[in-house]
Parts: sequence; structure tokens; C-alpha cells
Amino acid sequence: MNISPDATQIYAPTQAAPSYSLTLRVEYPNAAGMLGRITSAIGARGGDIGAIDIVPAESRASTQHAITRDITFAAIDREHALKIIADVSAVGLVDVVSVVDRTFLSHVGGKIEIAGKVPLKSRDDLARVYVPGVARIAAAIVENPEDIWNLSGRKNTIAIVSNGSEVLGLGDAGPSAALPVMESKSLLLKEFAGVNAFPLCLDAPDAASLVAVVRALEPSFGAIQLEDIAAPLCFEVEEKLSQVLAIPVLHNDQHGTAIVVLAALINALKLIHKRPETLKVAIHGAGAAGLATARLLLDWGARDVTICQQSHGPRGRVLHPALADEFEGHPTLQVLARGTNPRGVRGDLRDALMSADVFIGFGRETILGAGDIESMASDSIVFMMAYPEPEVDLGVALRMARIVGSGRSDFPNQINNMLAFPGFFRGLLDAHDAPGARPAPVTRAMKLAAAHAIAEVVTRDELNDDYIIPSVFDRRVVTDVAQAVVRAAQS
Amino acid sequence: MNISPDATQIYAPTQAAPSYSLTLRVEYPNAAGMLGRITSAIGARGGDIGAIDIVPAESRASTQHAITRDITFAAIDREHALKIIADVSAVGLVDVVSVVDRTFLSHVGGKIEIAGKVPLKSRDDLARVYVPGVARIAAAIVENPEDIWNLSGRKNTIAIVSNGSEVLGLGDAGPSAALPVMESKSLLLKEFAGVNAFPLCLDAPDAASLVAVVRALEPSFGAIQLEDIAAPLCFEVEEKLSQVLAIPVLHNDQHGTAIVVLAALINALKLIHKRPETLKVAIHGAGAAGLATARLLLDWGARDVTICQQSHGPRGRVLHPALADEFEGHPTLQVLARGTNPRGVRGDLRDALMSADVFIGFGRETILGAGDIESMASDSIVFMMAYPEPEVDLGVALRMARIVGSGRSDFPNQINNMLAFPGFFRGLLDAHDAPGARPAPVTRAMKLAAAHAIAEVVTRDELNDDYIIPSVFDRRVVTDVAQAVVRAAQS
Repeated sequence: MNISPDATQIYAPTQAAPSYSLTLRVEYPNAAGMLGRITSAIGARGGDIGAIDIVPAESRASTQHAITRDITFAAIDREHALKIIADVSAVGLVDVVSVVDRTFLSHVGGKIEIAGKVPLKSRDDLARVYVPGVARIAAAIVENPEDIWNLSGRKNTIAIVSNGSEVLGLGDAGPSAALPVMESKSLLLKEFAGVNAFPLCLDAPDAASLVAVVRALEPSFGAIQLEDIAAPLCFEVEEKLSQVLAIPVLHNDQHGTAIVVLAALINALKLIHKRPETLKVAIHGAGAAGLATARLLLDWGARDVTICQQSHGPRGRVLHPALADEFEGHPTLQVLARGTNPRGVRGDLRDALMSADVFIGFGRETILGAGDIESMASDSIVFMMAYPEPEVDLGVALRMARIVGSGRSDFPNQINNMLAFPGFFRGLLDAHDAPGARPAPVTRAMKLAAAHAIAEVVTRDELNDDYIIPSVFDRRVVTDVAQAVVRAAQS
Repeated sequence: MNISPDATQIYAPTQAAPSYSLTLRVEYPNAAGMLGRITSAIGARGGDIGAIDIVPAESRASTQHAITRDITFAAIDREHALKIIADVSAVGLVDVVSVVDRTFLSHVGGKIEIAGKVPLKSRDDLARVYVPGVARIAAAIVENPEDIWNLSGRKNTIAIVSNGSEVLGLGDAGPSAALPVMESKSLLLKEFAGVNAFPLCLDAPDAASLVAVVRALEPSFGAIQLEDIAAPLCFEVEEKLSQVLAIPVLHNDQHGTAIVVLAALINALKLIHKRPETLKVAIHGAGAAGLATARLLLDWGARDVTICQQSHGPRGRVLHPALADEFEGHPTLQVLARGTNPRGVRGDLRDALMSADVFIGFGRETILGAGDIESMASDSIVFMMAYPEPEVDLGVALRMARIVGSGRSDFPNQINNMLAFPGFFRGLLDAHDAPGARPAPVTRAMKLAAAHAIAEVVTRDELNDDYIIPSVFDRRVVTDVAQAVVRAAQS
């Protein structure tokens, strides 16, 4: 009946997202049929009820004649959620006490913390762990600097470094907006790979400052994971850091994504019996992921890769050697403009797709139709990692192409770089264990080995057009990727 | 009888320390009196046995006719430990299987780790905590930047920043050697104050690079704790950072120490009934701790403070205004040379001590005798935080002075900055909670309030010449210091 003052203040949700889960606290008279009327109201509007929980007495606002329940349901987006809440409020005698956005609740106060690994309860503990004991540890490291890998947490600690210049479809959102995202990646690295990954979102807008800061940070970390740094800045930063650091560095948006795309492609080829050397690949997007994928596919053995830049015209512009001079300040793009498109395709994404075997899209909006997918070669493969919208409607792609993969978890073949980076960093850090080995630099061989390892988690029996890539919850992935990286480091 | 090949390889201990605890694994025939002969050998050489543990069967190296025990004992230093081990090996039929240095064992693999605070077990978890859910969190922060304090861990996270230029009596040992020390401080901050403190040991030798790096790090942290940075670099860095950062910054070696010294002094004065304004204070050491202590004592109300520099002559050189011109590049020292020594004392530490009420020493070696303490005023107070050796033998000081405090846990009145910094940072972070409040800069009022809060933990009934400062394990200290800092921030 009444909607409380706070009820419409769903905490600052500004963007629709597939998983929009709310918990509604409702209070209503202890009378037959009340709960049914509430759940019907939610269901009639299209809300998907997940749980109905009783509320402990001490949390209840009102008298014993009223019933209080927490109803958790999924909505499509903010508007949809507000309509459902209004409908519930309109049910006679029902009071909406509060609305909690479960996504926001997961992030309040941060998602990670520091935990101690040794006790600190007695004077003896203190003497060993702090002063004077730790002075002996420091002295030992002065005497033998390599002891740092044994006598500190460095060997299992990485920095997740971002300047927030390219955050999850938000563009240059800045370091603050990137911090919750990096916390999530830290959580993934610990949960899936046992790596201590600390999020460092830096106020460092250019290559010089990013490189200088990460250089200074080196003594505290075993490896550096770069994240959400815009192209072309990311290429320059990663390359310079790889040269100046004695620890490995990897830009995940580039290589994590490229590795998983390649893994999916390796398995797709097993089903359609085509070979890398004869494959025609069209990539849409000349940013971090697009260029890194092009590079990795060429390293793998693909010969006919065509890249289409997003930023020129509605359907982009195909790169070719004659454009290379345009890219004076962007060596990665220049090299790829010269080293791709062997058939000399001119035009836009439509021209690149014509007769292509594989389409890999990193675009941001729908710009293609069914006819474009139809223009591809037979047994076509379409991978679209687009955010928020893929180049072709996913339903259309599923009808027109032989094998379809996407970034989404609610469609088959989810291509998600979380299949690669936790195991990759686990492997980089474990490679230290080799006798006398300093951390090894990241190599092409490691990336190729990681892609094959992910692909091989799917057995021949399981392999299917709808199952070319393992689940993100398949624990074998991290172990196999880590082992592949360690082997590649040692060979 | 035999000493195994590994047994003498006590892991790299290069410096003697009071707490030198080893665990010896010994194996001997199952015969009467064997264990007694072993423990007698240890005791006869002066080893202090702490525990004798049985070794689980699966860890045992040899047959059922042999007994295996882990004997834990404390030695004075490495040489002493080696002698004890040799004595045990010389006992007939006894085999020393292994020797573990428990201090080193506490530090192997690091002392802290990252832990997740939210579950990540299902696709629903992933959708809320990672993509797409976290994109909504990032978008909310773009819309309202102040949400960073609520929607990330920043509000409870600090960086412990060091460049390792002044590490625990080792001098300029470098960032690697500092890392285990900063891990220990991280452990203390979590264990005692619930603060997530991440150790960042930087390859940043000068003020410009330290300031630039910490500036870039600002968006990820709620406060900055500077540690083990040499003077005068530490003064310049702290001052510049305080100007450019919007979050609080505190150099613990300066202010943590000064706060605890002042707390001890406040309580000592209650016993000897002297007042700050009439007190003559001699401080030995013009480094981070010495100068910060001088400044805080002046802020508190002391008028007659004399500082003696360590580096000039065997017993240093007393600072006075005429020397100020020497300190052109060191404004902190210059200001204090002008603002201290109102009686115009000339000479060295002996001259400063003459008729002084209080001696506060931060020296490194024994340079004074009983007569020097005797030359002080009646009811003299002597605090010596020296490392490794105090200016006067502690036993002598205890005989000659009324009240003695030191950095050591095996003497009364341990003056340790761990009484101050965990609660101080807890308070700085909690001060955020004030409605609409950005993190407040560190103020003199906060430091004075913290010192009084520590002092007041010792009740009038408890207060005694031998008990002027609470135990480092007294949990009230952190709470009281934090509350004092919050109050000072809000007033």
C-alpha cells in the first residue's frame, strides 16, 4: 500500500545489466493469500523470483500481527525493477520496507582484504615476526638478494595495474572507477589460482608516468598484470615495461583475450576440419584485443588475417599496407597494417567478411545483418566479444554461422579472458621455482601453449559446435594453463 | 653422534638477536635416559629449552627402534646456537636430523596474503561480483566519485611505503630488504587495528621519484604510511606529500615514535610532579625520530629542548641557532636549530645532559657512563630507543635514573611505536565516516591527542616508575588512540 521513502532509492544503479538482482523487504498483515498476491505481482510484470526468506525477529520493524519477508528477484534493468516495486507497493496492505540491490551489496566496503599467515598473539611471536627477528631477515636479504623470493611474499604476489583509461565499455573512466573492477580480478586470481594480486589504480595518464611508477613498484612484486589501459597507450607501456623490468608483465586485455579466442578457434577447427594456413580471418577492432589477437593468430600459423578499424565510417575501414604511413605514432598498428590483409581487401567490414572463414568481433554496436554472415565461407565461425552490443544480433549469428562464440554467459561458447589470466600468472610465478631461475619474460611460446592447454581441456568426446571452450568454473583450466606456461618458460 | 650434512646450515642468520629460537630434530635409540642426556647438553651450554615435541610417524626418517623428537630452544646468537648443536651431536648415539630457525621459518613465503570477502562459487556470484555486475559499480563511481569510499575497499586500505633507505639499523639496505619489515607492519595493522595495509617497497631513491610514485598511487588508498626512509629525505617527502595528496600521510619513524615517547613522558611527569614548561629535555639524534620528538615536545608545551646531532665527534654536537646556516638544504633541522636550546648550551651530549630532567636517546652505541646520568637533575628520566646499543648500559641507567624506558621488551617501560601507528591509522580511516568528510590531513592536535590517549590507558593505580606505558598487547590502546584521532579530526 505504502512505498517507504527509501524504497525507490535503489543504490545508484545507472546502467542496465543482464544480472539485476534485488531483494525487497515487504511487510504485510498475517492473512491468507497475501504472499501469493505479492509473488503474482512480481511474476506478472516479468520479475524472476529467486528466493523468499523469513526475516529474523530482531530485524523486524513492526508488530507480531505483521509478517516480514525478503523476496529476491531478478529484473532486466533499473526501469523494470522500479515497475515491479511499484506493482508490489500497489498490492493492498503491503508495505515495501526496503530495496537492496544485491550487486551493489557485493561491492560495499570492497571485495578483498589482507590476511595474516602467521600468528601474532604473544611476545615470542612478536620477537620472531617483528622486531628484532625481522631485522635478521632483512640482513639475510642484503647478504643474498635472491632470498627475497623465499623470505617474503613476493614470489606469489602480483600487481594488477590500471590507469582506468579503458574501463568495461565506459571508456576513460579514470582510476577510481577502475578500482572495483581490479578488486574483482584480484578475487578471481586468488579464488581460481591462489595468486595474491593487489589492485593498483594509478593516476598516471601517459606512458612515461605509467612506466616510471611500475618500475618503482617492481621490488614488491613477482609479476605485473596490466588491465583496462586504452590503446595505443597499452602497447607502448607493455613493451617498455617488458624491456626495463626483470619480472614478467602482461596486458590482459590484449593477451588474455587473444589466448582464449585462439583456444576457441583451435577447437572449432577440429570440428570443421580447416587448417590455420588456409584460413581467412576477419577481425573487427584495432584496439588492444583486436591487434593482440591478430598477432597471436599470425604466430600460431594463420596467414590470411584482415583487420578492420572501427573508427572510420559506420562499418569501419579495412587495414592494408598503403595505410601504414598514417600510423607513425602507433608502431603496433603500423606493423600489422603492413603484415596483414595479403589479398589486398579494400573497403569496410562487409568487404572483409566476404568469403571469410572466421569473424572475430570486438565492436560496440550492431552494424551487420544476416546477409553479411551468409556472405562468409561455408562452416563459418563467428566470435563476438562486443560490449555492450555485438556486431550482429547473437540470435541471427546462431542461425547463420556454423559455430558461434561470444562474451556472454547466457549463450554457448563463452569466450572470457578469465579462462586465461589466472592460470597464466600462476604459471609465471611457479616458473620461479626452477632452480636458479629468475622470473621469465612472457613469450609467444607461453601464449600459444596456454591457448592449446585451454583447448585441450575439452575432450574429443565433449567437443561440439556448442562446446568448443571449457566453462569458467572448470578447475582443470587453471592447472593446465599454469603447467603449459611453466613448460614453455623452461624450454 | 653424527651431525647430518644439513644440520649446520642454519638458514642464513647473519646477525645476533635476543630471540634466537631453533627447533632441533633429533633421533636416538629407544633407551632409558637418552632424552635427559640431550636436554642436559643443551642446558649445560646455556640453551633455554622451550618445548619437546613428538614427531608424527609419517614425518619420521627411521625405524621403530629409534625415537624422533623436535626440541625447541632459545640461544643467544648464531655462534651460541652452533655450539649447542655441536654438543647435542656429541652425545653418544644421537643423530641431529635437521635444524630449523623458527624466526626464518615465520617469514618464508611471506607473512600476509590477499583474502576474498565475497563468495565466487557460482555463475550468479560471478555476474554480480565480476562482469557484468562490476560495470554498474564502475559507472556509479563515474557518476558520483565519492562513492569510491563505499563501493571499494579504499576506505580501509593504506599503503606502507618505503624505499628501504633506513632499515632497522642496517642503514640504506634497499627496497628488497625492507619488504619483510613492511610485511610485519602490515600484519600488525591488520591484527591490532583491522586495517588492510599493503607493503610497497619502492625503487625510488630521491624525493622527486618517491613523491611522484605515491601521488600516482593515491586513488587506490585511504592513507599513506611512510616507513624506513632516511633523514633528511623523509622530511621533504612527507611534507611534499602532505601538500599534494588529498589523503592523510604519516611517516611512522618520526611521528609514531614521537607520540609514544611523549606518552611515556606525560605519565613519567605524573610521578615526579614536574611540568612541561619547566622541563629541561636533552635529545640525542637529529634524525627522523629525534627531530619529530623535539617538534612534538615543543607543540606539547616543553620550552627547553636541546638536540644533539650524532654525527659530529664521539659524543655528537649540540645544536644552536648559530649553526642554522649550515643546514641550508635541510629546513627541518634549520628550524629546530633556531627553535631549541634556549639556554645556549655548547658542546656535546655530556654538556646537554648536565642538569637535564629528561634524556631521550636515539643513538647507536654506548658513549656515556654512570657519571653522565648522575649529572642530570634529580628524579631524572632516561628513555633510550637505541639500536642496537643504547647510549648508556641499560643496567647502569636503571641504577642511576629515576625512570627508565627503552625499546626493549625485556626491560620495563618498552617504548615502541607499535603502540601508536595501528590506532592512529585506524582513527584516520574512521574519520572518513563523518558525514561528507574527506579524509582529514594529519594534524598536531591528532598526535598530541594520541599521546595522551596512550598515556591514559595506564590508570593512576597502575602508574609506577616501572609501568609508565601500556603493554603492546593491551588492546585498549588501539581503540583509545583511534577514538582520540577521530575526535581531533572532527574538532
